[in-house]
Amino acid sequence: MTGSSPTFPAIEPPDEQAAAAALARQDTLTKPPGALGRLEQLSVWVASCQGSCPPRQFQRPRVVVFAGDHGVVAAGVSAFPAEVTAQMVANFAAGGAAVNVLAELVGAGVRVVDVAVDTDEPLTPAIGAYKVRRSSGNIAVEDALSRDEAEAAVAAGRRIADEEVDAGADLLIAGDMGIGNTTPATTLIAALTDAEPVAVVGRGTGVDDDGWARKTAAIRDALYRARGQLADPVGLLAVCGGADLGAMAGFCAQAAVRRTPVLLDGVVVTAAAMVADRMAPGARRWWQAGHRSTEPAHSLALQRLALDPIVDLGMRLGEGTGAVVALPILRAAVATLTSMATFEEAQVSNRVDDGSDTS
Amino acid sequence: MTGSSPTFPAIEPPDEQAAAAALARQDTLTKPPGALGRLEQLSVWVASCQGSCPPRQFQRPRVVVFAGDHGVVAAGVSAFPAEVTAQMVANFAAGGAAVNVLAELVGAGVRVVDVAVDTDEPLTPAIGAYKVRRSSGNIAVEDALSRDEAEAAVAAGRRIADEEVDAGADLLIAGDMGIGNTTPATTLIAALTDAEPVAVVGRGTGVDDDGWARKTAAIRDALYRARGQLADPVGLLAVCGGADLGAMAGFCAQAAVRRTPVLLDGVVVTAAAMVADRMAPGARRWWQAGHRSTEPAHSLALQRLALDPIVDLGMRLGEGTGAVVALPILRAAVATLTSMATFEEAQVSNRVDDGSDTS
Repeated sequence: MTGSSPTFPAIEPPDEQAAAAALARQDTLTKPPGALGRLEQLSVWVASCQGSCPPRQFQRPRVVVFAGDHGVVAAGVSAFPAEVTAQMVANFAAGGAAVNVLAELVGAGVRVVDVAVDTDEPLTPAIGAYKVRRSSGNIAVEDALSRDEAEAAVAAGRRIADEEVDAGADLLIAGDMGIGNTTPATTLIAALTDAEPVAVVGRGTGVDDDGWARKTAAIRDALYRARGQLADPVGLLAVCGGADLGAMAGFCAQAAVRRTPVLLDGVVVTAAAMVADRMAPGARRWWQAGHRSTEPAHSLALQRLALDPIVDLGMRLGEGTGAVVALPILRAAVATLTSMATFEEAQVSNRVDDGSDTS
Repeated sequence: MTGSSPTFPAIEPPDEQAAAAALARQDTLTKPPGALGRLEQLSVWVASCQGSCPPRQFQRPRVVVFAGDHGVVAAGVSAFPAEVTAQMVANFAAGGAAVNVLAELVGAGVRVVDVAVDTDEPLTPAIGAYKVRRSSGNIAVEDALSRDEAEAAVAAGRRIADEEVDAGADLLIAGDMGIGNTTPATTLIAALTDAEPVAVVGRGTGVDDDGWARKTAAIRDALYRARGQLADPVGLLAVCGGADLGAMAGFCAQAAVRRTPVLLDGVVVTAAAMVADRMAPGARRWWQAGHRSTEPAHSLALQRLALDPIVDLGMRLGEGTGAVVALPILRAAVATLTSMATFEEAQVSNRVDDGSDTS
């Protein structure tokens, strides 16, 4: 299997005709052209993803939280103990985590998937249906995954995206949960952007100065081992990623295959998205960045993906929370394009051609 | 009446005890401390405004759109003809404007008030119940209002805020509609910040270069006449404001009197808010900035009010739209503080004291 890769079909771009129709419709609505700013751009994007102008309001947004542990926690890179990953899976299942509360507020469903939590048994068979392994290897000293495991992780994410789209999801959000997961995420971003670790390593859940130094050293060591894999996304996931990151990458890529828009979350999901856009070039056109997190690597990844975050609220929680917070703004974009009156309908005068006419 | 001013009672600050309780509760919730960023700060502010921790979710947010014309349109400062103001009042009443669509999406009520539209008769008696006059004077060459009219405008805004709070509003948003209104708004902000007109004059609804030059000249002339009024907020409204701006100022100040939080919108509302904070010092503590508009004067006003906008989406429409778009984020802040599980409830381990423990 060495060197083989998951084969994604060529990614088609969103519909250009629907985009053109949306742009034209925006200029007929009762407002100065461009006055709704980013909302107008987002409305055009949604129309192009749906191939329909006006677009339909999102009815079934779905959040999938990919949980996995990371052996690199043994290197002292996190402020929280690894047992928290499994405990938080239970918290998601019980509805008590931030993403549950935020998703309920906006009518989004939440599903949690144990891809590689460091337990023998998943919390429930459904949650563990796509479990790849217990934890991932300590990337400071060893590969995160075998190549087969990396492929299995990507395939799991693809199947999960298919399940959600087949069940009617019209917008997908990936979330992450895993103590230590900003370490492989930052490594992937640094590898794919040729960045210096010290320039992009953040505090994750809030590691102290000594922990930050250990994290930076771990990333530097993992990057050294990743050098030969830069042209091979699955190889990169195996060497310095993790099963949860692989599943998120498969999920984001498959969403594009299924012509389903995605709101990206923070640094972990966006690291996976960078890998996904390598596996399925052009997939990024089906994504928007929900928010900008405080992690330095996140901003770098967004820049390379040419994605401009919708909100910037100093969040750094993961779980999909930053994307879920941005969802109402995407809905606002759809609503204005779909439901505002036109100048003609409302009998409102359009702009004067020459401002001097009014003097 | 010359020199008299509307008397506002001393503004009490939001509740410090509720704020302290909210801050303490945030650190018990199942997330790293501070990981929800701005949402945590907003949740503390809402708790302090309501005097209650956890805070109650907003049930009856209300948008009041203050409509008025401006004689300075005769100086060629706008890309749209003045007749649009009255036409848009009808559009609001029919539910076809952007703010109607956005408010419906988030369950906020919209009320439009004709404060000074340039028509003999208001669209309906209810919409015209607080009409002060037809239009406001051309501030490039004359006062916008008499002192009595300025006082009547402030009083109208106060009564409208009282009506809304008495009817159960738990969050207030002021919106603006008036062709030409960014000219007096920018003048007020420049006067209160001692800014050079050329540094803060924006394009409003999209005026061209010649119109921008005329607008800048009008503001310069109005500022010259405003020099003597800087210590007298009502005098300033009379010389270089307008009836709609006066009503918005009274509305924002009275909301603080009534301990009711406000989400500010763009440059016009925020100009009125600056005047309100002069009439009722400390009122600003009851406000958050919903968004940052593209108008340069808006950023300057927010800076002086020490308010950090929640979103920055390149919007410049007014009507309250920027504030309404931010409302779901305020609700997200409330929901997380109110409904997330604590570490104890969810039996999740809290952070390790020393990251080296995990190595």
